[in-house]
Amino acid sequence: MNKRIYLDNAATTQVSGDVLNEMMPYFTSIYGNSNSLHSFGREADNGVDMARDRIAKAINATSSEIYFTSGGTEANNWAIRGVAYANQNRGKHIIVSSIEHHSIIETCKDLQKEGFEVTYLPVDETGLVSVEELLHELRPDTILVSIMAVNNEVGTIQHIRAIGEIVKDFKAYFHTDAVQALGSIDINVQEMNIDVMSLSAHKIHGPKGVGALYVKKGVPIKKLVYGGEQESNKRGGTTNVPAIVGFGKACANVKRDLKICNKKLNEIATYFIKKVEYEIPNIKFNGNFRQKAPGIVNVSFKYVDSESVLIKLDLKGIAVSAGSACASGSLEKSHVLKAMGLVAEDLNGAVRFSFGVDVTKDDVDYVVRTLVDIIEELREMSPINKKVKK
Amino acid sequence: MNKRIYLDNAATTQVSGDVLNEMMPYFTSIYGNSNSLHSFGREADNGVDMARDRIAKAINATSSEIYFTSGGTEANNWAIRGVAYANQNRGKHIIVSSIEHHSIIETCKDLQKEGFEVTYLPVDETGLVSVEELLHELRPDTILVSIMAVNNEVGTIQHIRAIGEIVKDFKAYFHTDAVQALGSIDINVQEMNIDVMSLSAHKIHGPKGVGALYVKKGVPIKKLVYGGEQESNKRGGTTNVPAIVGFGKACANVKRDLKICNKKLNEIATYFIKKVEYEIPNIKFNGNFRQKAPGIVNVSFKYVDSESVLIKLDLKGIAVSAGSACASGSLEKSHVLKAMGLVAEDLNGAVRFSFGVDVTKDDVDYVVRTLVDIIEELREMSPINKKVKK
Repeated sequence: MNKRIYLDNAATTQVSGDVLNEMMPYFTSIYGNSNSLHSFGREADNGVDMARDRIAKAINATSSEIYFTSGGTEANNWAIRGVAYANQNRGKHIIVSSIEHHSIIETCKDLQKEGFEVTYLPVDETGLVSVEELLHELRPDTILVSIMAVNNEVGTIQHIRAIGEIVKDFKAYFHTDAVQALGSIDINVQEMNIDVMSLSAHKIHGPKGVGALYVKKGVPIKKLVYGGEQESNKRGGTTNVPAIVGFGKACANVKRDLKICNKKLNEIATYFIKKVEYEIPNIKFNGNFRQKAPGIVNVSFKYVDSESVLIKLDLKGIAVSAGSACASGSLEKSHVLKAMGLVAEDLNGAVRFSFGVDVTKDDVDYVVRTLVDIIEELREMSPINKKVKK
Repeated sequence: MNKRIYLDNAATTQVSGDVLNEMMPYFTSIYGNSNSLHSFGREADNGVDMARDRIAKAINATSSEIYFTSGGTEANNWAIRGVAYANQNRGKHIIVSSIEHHSIIETCKDLQKEGFEVTYLPVDETGLVSVEELLHELRPDTILVSIMAVNNEVGTIQHIRAIGEIVKDFKAYFHTDAVQALGSIDINVQEMNIDVMSLSAHKIHGPKGVGALYVKKGVPIKKLVYGGEQESNKRGGTTNVPAIVGFGKACANVKRDLKICNKKLNEIATYFIKKVEYEIPNIKFNGNFRQKAPGIVNVSFKYVDSESVLIKLDLKGIAVSAGSACASGSLEKSHVLKAMGLVAEDLNGAVRFSFGVDVTKDDVDYVVRTLVDIIEELREMSPINKKVKK
């Protein structure tokens, strides 16, 4: 039996047993349409209500501010487009960071074609947005600022609270993509001055295909998905009851276990970092080590190509990624690492290791041992490496 | 133990055991992101590929023409908005029927605000769109015609093939909402001249939260959900692998069992209709009895209010609905029955019974016996009924 080690938890996670257990009855016994008035429907609706409460509680919101979506991407699309359209009478300027997820960047690019003006804020070499830069770019016609709380590729945590305060002062709305943040940091929408926030279940051991948008009471937002009167008439579509129930449980788990999980993740990631540092020369860790999601380690192996590392690790049963999964079909290198100003040799060799709490030191030993061989082998073949050696 | 009989299969269905069995491994063992390049991702992707093939096969499309969505509502939103935006240089006129699902009607209303012109075709008293009427409304600037294949409230089946042919002749695109049709009629996108078609899993004993849009090769369509490069770069968002796998299995079941299921549904529905006809006076069956989904029976009980019937049946463990679940929160009566020209007494007392293959004659006997009592009791209290009696 070959070893299989999953170090791609920032791409997606395994659904945990207790989450799946809570979901199960909603497939085959409490299967009603939660919008139906009969008992089959009401029972399903109770499950949805409980989930909404749990999610609200996890982020210090009220239940009526939580709207379920099909995932983080839909939530991000809705947030940007919905706030832009609903507030365009006040201005057409939007500010986002240059390291946002594709669902934000691509939506913004499309809005630019429709006459909106979008400023893409630069980040420093650790992936941090400068608060001064944001202050500089805010204008009277700025209606929306969107800055992701935790970056999915390098794990950098932004100064969300400070940013929220500034945006509030400028009377713009503040959206944060907290898809990677949920389960990594303690999110408090009140304290952080967040107006709109995107969440997803599948990054926190919940099911795929479900997410939520937090919309603070009173924030104007146009619909993205039209249809029935579900989600307080803000998002049409038959309610995805089992997935929502699972999302609720996953959120409750995060609320309960965040500290202990982060401690574990921090320990195992630190163990990995130290070993890699010791064993492999010519590397560079990417991200901000004072403000970083504990489970994400992004490291550049100079003079090798990340895809080759990924493929060779995969042959040894180790799953990692080179950038985000959403862009893995493309040959383009990470826009996040580019925005952080990585030079070509660091950009080409960047690999993301994202840990789960079940990863052991033995696993890490195996991974690093394998990695040492792979990097050495690849560097042997690399013409650039040979040149450098000379 | 109280009896519980579910007669609301047009609202949603129980996930069947074999569907759930196929889904299960994708939650906890084949849990990779199907976009990831490593083996966890490739295994998940294989599941998605198989599902895409099964769905394509069920409707005589090719796999590359199937794009997964979060459900029928998203598919309908995308179809209408996507085709409208991508073809607006050729014209801004859209034709839909007046009995479309809210996801179509509400999207069209929003497009009207943006300068699109929408014609809502009337239907006859059985819910059929007149082909002559369609011919009359088609114009050189008509870019899109959307007519649902099978209506979810009354079960009327449209002349889809004839409509498809006409739309093709006029060089417009033809979309059909086939959410209720899948599992009710044999769908063949080639023979029916369908350009774009919406599907959903949860009406055919698949999971909630997943659907698909069939887009014929070459049909221009703008994105609705921006993000990563999933779904051939046409729909962003982490692929909902377990649900998609379940959808595929449910489609394969439909393909295999359509005839036998329809025979069963027809038998049980006919048994119900005859019994109700015999036992309860002053009723009216709604829909087209020559062209009707076998499992849907919509019947108006004069001089009673449908909500009261629903609530009283629910107390006896019987789940039915008054109109579509999506609109059940609203006090508005069905726009479908209104469009069919029902008079107030028929509109107010309309109840939908939608059967599943597991409903027995014993169940129907119990339902009709209960119904007789309820209708009698409600009519006793009805002032209109008393007036009529006089």
